[in-house]
Amino acid sequence: MLRQTKPPLSDPLKQLVGQPVAAIDTPALVVDLDAMQRNLNRMAEFAKKREIRWRPHAKMHKCSAIARLQVQAGAVGVCVQKTAEAEAMAAGGVRDIYISNEVIAPQKLARVAQLAHRLADEGGQLAIAVDSREGVERLGQAMNEARRDGGRSAVIDVFVEIDVGHGRCGVAPGRPAVALVHEIRKHPALRFAGLQAYHGRAQHIRNPQERREVIAQVVRDAAATRKLIEDEGVKVPLVTGAGTGSMVCEAASGVYGELQSGSFLFMDADYARNERDPAQPHFEHALFVKTQVMSAGPQHAVCDAGHKSHAIDSGLPMVHRLEGDPELEYANGGDEHGILRPAAGNRLPEIGRVLWLIPGHCDPTVNLHDHLIVVRGGLVNGKVDRILRVDARGALT
Amino acid sequence: MLRQTKPPLSDPLKQLVGQPVAAIDTPALVVDLDAMQRNLNRMAEFAKKREIRWRPHAKMHKCSAIARLQVQAGAVGVCVQKTAEAEAMAAGGVRDIYISNEVIAPQKLARVAQLAHRLADEGGQLAIAVDSREGVERLGQAMNEARRDGGRSAVIDVFVEIDVGHGRCGVAPGRPAVALVHEIRKHPALRFAGLQAYHGRAQHIRNPQERREVIAQVVRDAAATRKLIEDEGVKVPLVTGAGTGSMVCEAASGVYGELQSGSFLFMDADYARNERDPAQPHFEHALFVKTQVMSAGPQHAVCDAGHKSHAIDSGLPMVHRLEGDPELEYANGGDEHGILRPAAGNRLPEIGRVLWLIPGHCDPTVNLHDHLIVVRGGLVNGKVDRILRVDARGALT
Repeated sequence: MLRQTKPPLSDPLKQLVGQPVAAIDTPALVVDLDAMQRNLNRMAEFAKKREIRWRPHAKMHKCSAIARLQVQAGAVGVCVQKTAEAEAMAAGGVRDIYISNEVIAPQKLARVAQLAHRLADEGGQLAIAVDSREGVERLGQAMNEARRDGGRSAVIDVFVEIDVGHGRCGVAPGRPAVALVHEIRKHPALRFAGLQAYHGRAQHIRNPQERREVIAQVVRDAAATRKLIEDEGVKVPLVTGAGTGSMVCEAASGVYGELQSGSFLFMDADYARNERDPAQPHFEHALFVKTQVMSAGPQHAVCDAGHKSHAIDSGLPMVHRLEGDPELEYANGGDEHGILRPAAGNRLPEIGRVLWLIPGHCDPTVNLHDHLIVVRGGLVNGKVDRILRVDARGALT
Repeated sequence: MLRQTKPPLSDPLKQLVGQPVAAIDTPALVVDLDAMQRNLNRMAEFAKKREIRWRPHAKMHKCSAIARLQVQAGAVGVCVQKTAEAEAMAAGGVRDIYISNEVIAPQKLARVAQLAHRLADEGGQLAIAVDSREGVERLGQAMNEARRDGGRSAVIDVFVEIDVGHGRCGVAPGRPAVALVHEIRKHPALRFAGLQAYHGRAQHIRNPQERREVIAQVVRDAAATRKLIEDEGVKVPLVTGAGTGSMVCEAASGVYGELQSGSFLFMDADYARNERDPAQPHFEHALFVKTQVMSAGPQHAVCDAGHKSHAIDSGLPMVHRLEGDPELEYANGGDEHGILRPAAGNRLPEIGRVLWLIPGHCDPTVNLHDHLIVVRGGLVNGKVDRILRVDARGALT
């Protein structure tokens, strides 16, 4: 494990707790706790009503304290994409973790096997995805070595990832998936746990009817693959997948048993561009970059948040409007600057003026920050409730 | 100062030093030390020949150890964009630091003033840019308060930023700049140090002749503003600016006294798309993301480096070709994945295959990583020479 242990919070950060929002220096990543809590409640209620498990993706918030809040609200555990993220979640007290991604490097698989044993010792469970025979063999070998070294007997849950149209990882649905299930079953330390079937691009199809049509095919592929496996006498315990954009479809499918949606908690500008499916709970923006104007010319103003403060892979941030705020458009000003232009009839913001940005994409935005500054009571009159460490930030390996 | 002190290197990281390149787990940010050293030597030689100072921009590498190497090679100090970057550079032993950007928040200006005194005590110097009367007044007040509190007498060097066509910060060249010079001179703790004149977008104009034409106008604006100020009996000690793309023009101008180029040290894929000006030294790619194939289908392979490993604001990474490597195109696979497609006649890389990516933009790429893994002896047979902490990573405020 190449990651560092994290130092304790610095004194100025500790002293920020209890202070009004105005005391937060810019740029900073701020969570509106009230909005986040409402999103969390709505998700828990949705899953309960649909009688489906939820395992939110912690690649989004990268914060074990938030993962624990999600588990308290009813989540069965979390997904992650990286071994180092799984280690950070486990170090933060999360006991049920699924690496919903392939791991190939032997040095990482040794860490995966160690973590599987550690979580099992603590009454938890580790799961992982595979999409190749090579991957299954390497994983089986790593688990065997960890068993031999420690004289222990943990098993790891293994999901077969099928490519349901995203076009990234995963074997083809049908026979190739069945073949992989048989490979898994050859290894005593691997337990076939079901199918990983996630269509990432479908999350951002703007029209809900089109999203439904794409996911209908996803569900057919998953169901057909499940049937082929079960026809050979092997039970498929779970089909897992879905994101914030499409989750109402998977939840209604009767095929999926678990939802992996993560972004619902913070809701970014990109997800807000989706037309909401009527079946989907209303999720609010809960993640903001606090920024301020540092330069003002005759035609535009410049704020102190550029794309080292927020990710721009899914579009630029939107400028949030609090009461009395001008309507402003954010244009890319580079790594450290944002260019602000007022809409027709609106005034330019003055130097020192505080603004709140809704990031285009929450996952890589959170990954740029060491801390989430959590505010209760709103962005105008609220106070800093707590500081959460983004303890899986930079957890790349 | 809201930043954390950094913990010591973890044992696995320490143990990596001296190991072969193969021991570096993926994804990881790797510096080819030999190439970096050649780039550094060429820059030092260029500046010496042109009789111009160089003050490389540390917003690019965010690493005080590299800043010290640059100073040893002849740089007068470094530029930064943020107060927290300046603090990290000072904590790492850099004594001559220029915040080439506006700072407006009173809590940050208090830190700027503290740092100015601290550097002065150590025989160093802090400088900063301004582009508004408000900014000058706030800075003067913060310096006065720090003087009163500590009974000290440091002055801060203040550059007037003029907008020479980039369209971001800066007052208009000419009279508005002169007015700001007079404002600065009202404050005993502020010393007018010259003009900040940087055209960021010009750096990426592909054709060298077009770059020269744009910079010719930049130089005219800077020269005319300097003349107006000097006509009023105020000396303009320095005109500073330029980047890796345009620096040959500013160096030849007779107007600029200092170059701020930063990217020359690592050379990213975007700068490589510039047609090289014949007057410019040859700079080599020295920064790579080591990645490996984690999934392979019939049409494409998937590697473990997505845009949480490298910035994509200036285009996707290029796949570097070592001897025997297939020619591959990198497509965006999201936060954690890269899609690799072979060029016609090339084979797909197999699972576990190591690949090296040249990032599209080095500055925000470095900002995603805690460490630079520095390799000597090349990417094939080299060894890990040292691990450098990116000590200003995430230094946003």
